[in-house]
Amino acid sequence: MARTRNSLETRTKLLDAARDLIRAKGYSATTVDDICQAAGVTKGGFFHHFESKDQLGVAAAEQFSNMAEQIFAAAPYQALEDPRDRLFGYIDFRIAMLGAEISQYTCLLGTMVQEAYATHPSVREACDAGMTAHVRELAHDIEDAKLLYAPKASWTSESVGYFIQSVIQGAFIFAKAKQSPEVAVQSMMHLRRYLESLFEH
Amino acid sequence: MARTRNSLETRTKLLDAARDLIRAKGYSATTVDDICQAAGVTKGGFFHHFESKDQLGVAAAEQFSNMAEQIFAAAPYQALEDPRDRLFGYIDFRIAMLGAEISQYTCLLGTMVQEAYATHPSVREACDAGMTAHVRELAHDIEDAKLLYAPKASWTSESVGYFIQSVIQGAFIFAKAKQSPEVAVQSMMHLRRYLESLFEH
Repeated sequence: MARTRNSLETRTKLLDAARDLIRAKGYSATTVDDICQAAGVTKGGFFHHFESKDQLGVAAAEQFSNMAEQIFAAAPYQALEDPRDRLFGYIDFRIAMLGAEISQYTCLLGTMVQEAYATHPSVREACDAGMTAHVRELAHDIEDAKLLYAPKASWTSESVGYFIQSVIQGAFIFAKAKQSPEVAVQSMMHLRRYLESLFEH
Repeated sequence: MARTRNSLETRTKLLDAARDLIRAKGYSATTVDDICQAAGVTKGGFFHHFESKDQLGVAAAEQFSNMAEQIFAAAPYQALEDPRDRLFGYIDFRIAMLGAEISQYTCLLGTMVQEAYATHPSVREACDAGMTAHVRELAHDIEDAKLLYAPKASWTSESVGYFIQSVIQGAFIFAKAKQSPEVAVQSMMHLRRYLESLFEH
């Protein structure tokens, strides 16, 4: 029992270290040695849990997706009754998150896939799976809001979900470039205004 | 004379190789050796032109920005008289570009800054400068269109320029994740619809 718990703790330490390092300096610049050092785990310990850096990258993407799912599932706006209110609650929640440190609010998946898309196929797939799952989750509220406020609209809820995530991912790039969330916040406000126009009908 | 021309050719070969390699596998994964090999230049030749990989990264960002400026300056929509038409021409031109190979239409600057923002400050600055210059260029047409069609709007032309670029950068991330431009095209169509609503007044 204790051994199983220790093993799980080691795995979690490695995944947390990978998440923080990759968010701060990217996937390729993060070495297995970096991760072991930050996690306080030996290289033997690493390879007990993961066959390769890519296998860790896949697991880190999955852990990040699960973490995000939990954060959004527990967010205050989920208690709102109207699906349109929940959608705007989600956007406002994402805007509020921009107040933290850059490496704390940017997306591990968007960062990894940007550089690894052609050279690390399993990592790309894991990033796609995580981002797609988040869009699908969001699309439930968009679909319910559409039924109530824009039943005849020609757009699909899924495409709006992807659009929202594109704005957020792009806003992160500008926050990184400018070392400030100001431009990102303004882009999110434009996004909010567009969503308001979609559900005005 | 011939020597100067050869030297310029070598520099251009190194910059072109860097652009293609970084777009395909990211900044950190691209080594000086990779670049020399792809360019057919010796390591001595490399260090004759650039003190470091970061100095090449900065130069590659500048070359990419100049190339992009030329492409958009020469695009057919620039001949349109109405600034709003030119703005929609720009969006449609960007949508049409999504028909090429992923590594041919994605942004070198967005790719580099995503991973290098905290660890390579000079590269981050060069990416910011290039992306900001593109937004400023675009903001001229947005401002002129605003004066004609939405003089009382509360948004700034610059913020709309950054919003457009955020959507484009985010759309590239999804094109990479999905190995297909389909989601990116749909996001650009949402962007177009939003811009239409801004200038309807």
